[in-house]
Amino acid sequence: MIRVGIVGATGYGGRELLRLLLAHPGVEVVAVASTSASGEAVGEVLPAFRKLCGLHFETFDADSLAARCDAVFVGVPGGQSMAPVAALRAAGARVLDIGADFRLKDPALWLQYYKKEHTAAGLLPESVYGLVPFYREALRGAQLVAVPGCYPISLIVPLRPLLDAPLGATPIVADSVSGISGAGRTLNEAFHYPEMNENLKAYKLGVHQHVPEIEQELLNRVTVQFTPHVAPLTRGILSTITVRPEREFDPAPYYAAYADEPFVRVLGPGALPEVKHVRASNYCDFGWHHDRRTGNLLIVSAIDNLVGGTAGMALQCLNVMFGLDESEGLRFGGMTP
Amino acid sequence: MIRVGIVGATGYGGRELLRLLLAHPGVEVVAVASTSASGEAVGEVLPAFRKLCGLHFETFDADSLAARCDAVFVGVPGGQSMAPVAALRAAGARVLDIGADFRLKDPALWLQYYKKEHTAAGLLPESVYGLVPFYREALRGAQLVAVPGCYPISLIVPLRPLLDAPLGATPIVADSVSGISGAGRTLNEAFHYPEMNENLKAYKLGVHQHVPEIEQELLNRVTVQFTPHVAPLTRGILSTITVRPEREFDPAPYYAAYADEPFVRVLGPGALPEVKHVRASNYCDFGWHHDRRTGNLLIVSAIDNLVGGTAGMALQCLNVMFGLDESEGLRFGGMTP
Amino acid sequence: MIRVGIVGATGYGGRELLRLLLAHPGVEVVAVASTSASGEAVGEVLPAFRKLCGLHFETFDADSLAARCDAVFVGVPGGQSMAPVAALRAAGARVLDIGADFRLKDPALWLQYYKKEHTAAGLLPESVYGLVPFYREALRGAQLVAVPGCYPISLIVPLRPLLDAPLGATPIVADSVSGISGAGRTLNEAFHYPEMNENLKAYKLGVHQHVPEIEQELLNRVTVQFTPHVAPLTRGILSTITVRPEREFDPAPYYAAYADEPFVRVLGPGALPEVKHVRASNYCDFGWHHDRRTGNLLIVSAIDNLVGGTAGMALQCLNVMFGLDESEGLRFGGMTP
Amino acid sequence: MIRVGIVGATGYGGRELLRLLLAHPGVEVVAVASTSASGEAVGEVLPAFRKLCGLHFETFDADSLAARCDAVFVGVPGGQSMAPVAALRAAGARVLDIGADFRLKDPALWLQYYKKEHTAAGLLPESVYGLVPFYREALRGAQLVAVPGCYPISLIVPLRPLLDAPLGATPIVADSVSGISGAGRTLNEAFHYPEMNENLKAYKLGVHQHVPEIEQELLNRVTVQFTPHVAPLTRGILSTITVRPEREFDPAPYYAAYADEPFVRVLGPGALPEVKHVRASNYCDFGWHHDRRTGNLLIVSAIDNLVGGTAGMALQCLNVMFGLDESEGLRFGGMTP
Repeated sequence: MIRVGIVGATGYGGRELLRLLLAHPGVEVVAVASTSASGEAVGEVLPAFRKLCGLHFETFDADSLAARCDAVFVGVPGGQSMAPVAALRAAGARVLDIGADFRLKDPALWLQYYKKEHTAAGLLPESVYGLVPFYREALRGAQLVAVPGCYPISLIVPLRPLLDAPLGATPIVADSVSGISGAGRTLNEAFHYPEMNENLKAYKLGVHQHVPEIEQELLNRVTVQFTPHVAPLTRGILSTITVRPEREFDPAPYYAAYADEPFVRVLGPGALPEVKHVRASNYCDFGWHHDRRTGNLLIVSAIDNLVGGTAGMALQCLNVMFGLDESEGLRFGGMTP
Repeated sequence: MIRVGIVGATGYGGRELLRLLLAHPGVEVVAVASTSASGEAVGEVLPAFRKLCGLHFETFDADSLAARCDAVFVGVPGGQSMAPVAALRAAGARVLDIGADFRLKDPALWLQYYKKEHTAAGLLPESVYGLVPFYREALRGAQLVAVPGCYPISLIVPLRPLLDAPLGATPIVADSVSGISGAGRTLNEAFHYPEMNENLKAYKLGVHQHVPEIEQELLNRVTVQFTPHVAPLTRGILSTITVRPEREFDPAPYYAAYADEPFVRVLGPGALPEVKHVRASNYCDFGWHHDRRTGNLLIVSAIDNLVGGTAGMALQCLNVMFGLDESEGLRFGGMTP
Repeated sequence: MIRVGIVGATGYGGRELLRLLLAHPGVEVVAVASTSASGEAVGEVLPAFRKLCGLHFETFDADSLAARCDAVFVGVPGGQSMAPVAALRAAGARVLDIGADFRLKDPALWLQYYKKEHTAAGLLPESVYGLVPFYREALRGAQLVAVPGCYPISLIVPLRPLLDAPLGATPIVADSVSGISGAGRTLNEAFHYPEMNENLKAYKLGVHQHVPEIEQELLNRVTVQFTPHVAPLTRGILSTITVRPEREFDPAPYYAAYADEPFVRVLGPGALPEVKHVRASNYCDFGWHHDRRTGNLLIVSAIDNLVGGTAGMALQCLNVMFGLDESEGLRFGGMTP
Repeated sequence: MIRVGIVGATGYGGRELLRLLLAHPGVEVVAVASTSASGEAVGEVLPAFRKLCGLHFETFDADSLAARCDAVFVGVPGGQSMAPVAALRAAGARVLDIGADFRLKDPALWLQYYKKEHTAAGLLPESVYGLVPFYREALRGAQLVAVPGCYPISLIVPLRPLLDAPLGATPIVADSVSGISGAGRTLNEAFHYPEMNENLKAYKLGVHQHVPEIEQELLNRVTVQFTPHVAPLTRGILSTITVRPEREFDPAPYYAAYADEPFVRVLGPGALPEVKHVRASNYCDFGWHHDRRTGNLLIVSAIDNLVGGTAGMALQCLNVMFGLDESEGLRFGGMTP
């Protein structure tokens, strides 16, 4: 049994991780830490876990966690994981950060997009970007994993294999629509139920913090015009990607390696994904369409932002790190309906 | 490995069963039958299961299923399982029917509420009502299990232990609100998205087919005024039960046996359940409130109609029938959000 | 042109009132007051009204409002309208309070349910309960109108005509389900989008502040077991009322007077209302069913909580007060879809 | 009073038109025709209009309608209005078609995108495209108005004034997200509530029938890569438009003429629209952002597809045709919440 701890288990990513880990046959959750809920029973704070999890939330203590856990997940808001991750690493723990703090290799970009000095930049070189299909080998021995962001996963999975294709120099247009859980549980008038139900909007045009992450993992070989949107659903991201290639080409061969990926489903030309087919699952589905009238290649991808976009991907990383079957605890089809 | 088959896997109950069974470590799904999809790959018909299930839908053949399966689930619309269940039983299969046809012990009530002659009434005596907390022993050797209806589960779980309490003679009022998946996948203008989104309604007042099932499993000792409603959500049932007791009494002792039930969570006085805390889980949560002003006892219960109300309960029955750990494949907390 | 002012126009009731009043051909909105938005343009604070309303929010000043307005609407949270209403009345203004402070005639009940001393109890005798079908005459000369609560409207309209029918002594069970706008715009984790979407719950069992209002307007001749619920929609209330009459009786004759009510639609036996048919309209629809098996009478009613349950009813009161056609500005059928 | 008739009043566009027309002080609805509901009372078929509309649906009769009506609205599915419109025109009626059949000036494009011969192509020259800001003069005397499509309105309003700006030759990318009412009331498994709730998808990539309409009304001077999507809400369209201009330019001066348009709200740079601010209103809101990093201009627009995108625009056309105040019956701010 792999013994794991979760720091910040009351947030949406942390809760979903706890839900998956408690059902994972090869994992034992031995500690959950929370600033706001320290001392309280998990089932009192999170009634969804009554009768399933007997733990109490504890105050964060890096040494104690490192001593008791084979791996520690950190799920705190962006900019707040630097300190606990550094402490956990100093105490010798293997860490999987589901936040943003260790994804960007360039601390200058971090400062620019997150408006905050990076206080643990020394750990960035050892951080492995936890997008399993591309970093599987590095993950096996990783001491620090930066679990990717949800929007980036929905874009990098379909785009990275195409980097050697004739994509053209025009910026790629990526319009992504997300469910509201992506905004986290912090109260905000924008996400008060009557304000967001039956609503649609775009936000953070041109300045979203996932832009440099997306481009870094596309090896800085393309420019991406990323526009995020929110729609009235809880979970899911649908990304529509418009590429202006130099000439028409067949994407299928570029995706050949995905045939062996357990959680990437290449739907092929003319087949389009839907959020419902990946809901509550770890899959990333995508398909494409050539528009001969315009000369563009359109790719559409879908993930569940909290599973395939966060907690499921984190769990897949854990499975790789500890040599378990990569699909353990994740063999769920999309929940439809 | 328990080898199972599913007849009618394209309906909502069947899909959810397939989702749970494919992730169950002790079960192998060896056959899926469907009238509408015979010959097609599961992943083509149900894209949520691409890359996870390599089966093709087959035409229903009772002998073949009985030969290959340790147990067969039947998930077809009400009134349509009599025939396949009878055929499967004749072929020697152990059967779990997630439909309604074998729940009522009295074929006259069946005729009255389902408007159809029962063509396999001879099997009713052997049918075990699959509400695990009350029929665990009978389930161990059961050859035919009638998995309970979703509304009945939400009412019988909190009410049956109270039958020896001073409930009074006034009919119990049970107002239940369900998500739309409970209506199944058959197209109906009432459940066309723009007709049902932002809508609320009551339906089938006084004549819902679950009335006799509820009262049968309350041992015909109380009358229940059951009024079902639909609200714009996909999954979940919330039942509000108003009891007019002869005198105030403490329900807690009556629920003592539930302390050992893995999927019943007694929240106690003043604590109320929410659908989100049971979503995508097998739990039934309930709490209560004495209103001293009126003299009434109010009980509120919550389940996920497709898991705790159908597929999860069916899987728990299977675990009991085959001596597996009763929680196997079901150790999920509520999916919040 | 009737000149009106609105105090508290940024809340949900106030916004809806502003929306209706700006479209009313016989009304001119001359002032909007808001504590939080004083000095700002309406269109900046409420972008829905850009290019339609050129006013700026002003600081509340009772004398100024009384001088400029023929009538002033007050739409502030429960317990906060006593002071501004008293000031406006002292300044000579005719006032319509869409809040709760002047609905209960008994200040002791106010204290019990609202947990606060009533500081303007001297105005309670002059306050007219603004349920038009029952207080039309009093409204014509009213100086102070207490616009009814949304849940009470959905219950009093179908029940008050039955007070002389053989209703029986058993408390009436009223299970109401409301959209989330009823909870107002104050941020609350319970109504954060991902917490409430796909959720259902009951709340304030036995203690909801609308209980004494409902019973007062049922002339304290019946006891009502009122249980409110919330469902994931923005607008609408569906109330299911279970009456245990002494004997079966025909409700239709009791409702004869509603034939002339412009906004009450009696659907009759066997016909049930839906929220969609009253959405964004001022109608209250209801129908009923006798359950001969149980002896109960079931009544189901539907309103839009923000129009027929608040702003529309307030506007209808205004029309009556100033001798306009009662339907002016309210001739909208339900918005479906 | 302008006397109007509606052919096809049971569809979603027709219902909304009926709702607006019944409340319009200068219009009298004298006839409603419906193939499916002929002979039935409006209030029976559409309970939302009980007690408000005393008409019965009648069988379509062009001569009778022409004799009784000053104008006739036709709201039938795409490809089915050619015949009734031609009959109404032959009978001398002024017609407003809210369907697609008279929008494209080129019958070859009609055939290509609608897969059907145009049987009334002779009327295309007299048809006026009812986008009021651009065809106001022509509408005054129009005998046949083709009310624009919903997606086209959301794109043409922000883009057409920019045609003389340095837009560049790269196809404009328009990713639009629509509520489900846009798909109409025809039953379809894709829009069965449990299939579409909590879902997102793109559809008709590169082949949507609105493509030629959009480009025609952008005077065939730009190419538009239009990708429509659906999200789980009933009403609203949000369009995100990515333009790759030759060089950065200020859009504001190009929009100067919109200052006088009653229903176009130019939010300016850095200000973004939301569907909720236009819900149930006739407004088209839009704003923009220059992304200096990529060199792109991003424009985001919002409409209510059934009001500003269909029935409201049709009513505004009617007001223009008959010399009424253009805003009559349409002075509604967005319904928030």
